[in-house]
Amino acid sequence: MTLDALTQRLRDFAAARDWEQFHTPKNLAMALSGEVGELTALFQWLTPEESADWRADETREFNVRDEIADVLVYLVRLADVLGVDLLEAANAKVDRNEKRFPPLVR
Amino acid sequence: MTLDALTQRLRDFAAARDWEQFHTPKNLAMALSGEVGELTALFQWLTPEESADWRADETREFNVRDEIADVLVYLVRLADVLGVDLLEAANAKVDRNEKRFPPLVR
Amino acid sequence: MTLDALTQRLRDFAAARDWEQFHTPKNLAMALSGEVGELTALFQWLTPEESADWRADETREFNVRDEIADVLVYLVRLADVLGVDLLEAANAKVDRNEKRFPPLVR
Amino acid sequence: MTLDALTQRLRDFAAARDWEQFHTPKNLAMALSGEVGELTALFQWLTPEESADWRADETREFNVRDEIADVLVYLVRLADVLGVDLLEAANAKVDRNEKRFPPLVR
Repeated sequence: MTLDALTQRLRDFAAARDWEQFHTPKNLAMALSGEVGELTALFQWLTPEESADWRADETREFNVRDEIADVLVYLVRLADVLGVDLLEAANAKVDRNEKRFPPLVR
Repeated sequence: MTLDALTQRLRDFAAARDWEQFHTPKNLAMALSGEVGELTALFQWLTPEESADWRADETREFNVRDEIADVLVYLVRLADVLGVDLLEAANAKVDRNEKRFPPLVR
Repeated sequence: MTLDALTQRLRDFAAARDWEQFHTPKNLAMALSGEVGELTALFQWLTPEESADWRADETREFNVRDEIADVLVYLVRLADVLGVDLLEAANAKVDRNEKRFPPLVR
Repeated sequence: MTLDALTQRLRDFAAARDWEQFHTPKNLAMALSGEVGELTALFQWLTPEESADWRADETREFNVRDEIADVLVYLVRLADVLGVDLLEAANAKVDRNEKRFPPLVR
């Protein structure tokens, strides 16, 4: 399964439910923001060390996977509606970051 | 370029800068949340119709691509640090959503 | 009831539950972020016009009040832990905004 | 200066700039979300201990105050537009929380 296949699957999913009318960039940005809020909440009271040991609690493990999935779903849907190629945009950004933050010389 | 290749690229990027120490799940969730906040801000005063016409303004177009890229970068990095397969998690979630929200019968 | 009284009430509430250990600025910023995500989610699929008519649905009305309350609670708690006077900071910011964005001349 | 006075000040500020047209609940929820994202970003790479020592860096101190102010500004404006009494809503929520989370018995 590739990102393209997921993009197509979500496009079909929205069409089959007549949800395209709700999927404006503005609304999808809000939905993304809501899901990231839920993901953040799962880590808020953990120390950084505990956050690395997130699988210790089974319910938390399920919830983390579930929220991460929701974030990707809305991000993919937003990029699709905007006509932005997610991987291309991310790679162009990492290119810029490589110039902005030179690696350590060792 | 695939999502796996981006994941590897970001892993190398962090290692070359000795940034792995900062990349706890907790911190990456916060970074993701910050980037989504910046993305949301780009659409906050637009009507839904204006948000669909986001390319009308060149600076906005660059900024939207830039912020979307940042969101994917931190999401990929977070999933990598957690050991979560992003595409698998998203597809499992869409499977659940298909049962939860049956498609329209037409 | 004033903002100062609410600040004191929340300080006592945390102390009585031994929650002060969790209330670092970092954790409270995350909690604030999570609550704002939940608030945003309540408006995500509404048109701007529907969002103005939020009382049309009783459950939504309760949820909006509830989430707004949570946002204020964590904001007040964060400011208290940081030793920031919320009203003073906000007024200083509005002073700056008044210079930055001159009013319309009519 | 009270919360009521700040509410009135922000109402006048919006009116003097003809910004009321942008201040729908939906848009203000997004603006709040954007500001909280910026606030969160200030703490994202800090350890919880460093986050408690936020005044060590003068630029950070200014930025934290500035972002906290922005969060309160949009929260107050949102509550005003919704007709929600912030302090009343927060106190009602703390009443509910007191029942939900009994204090420690010592």
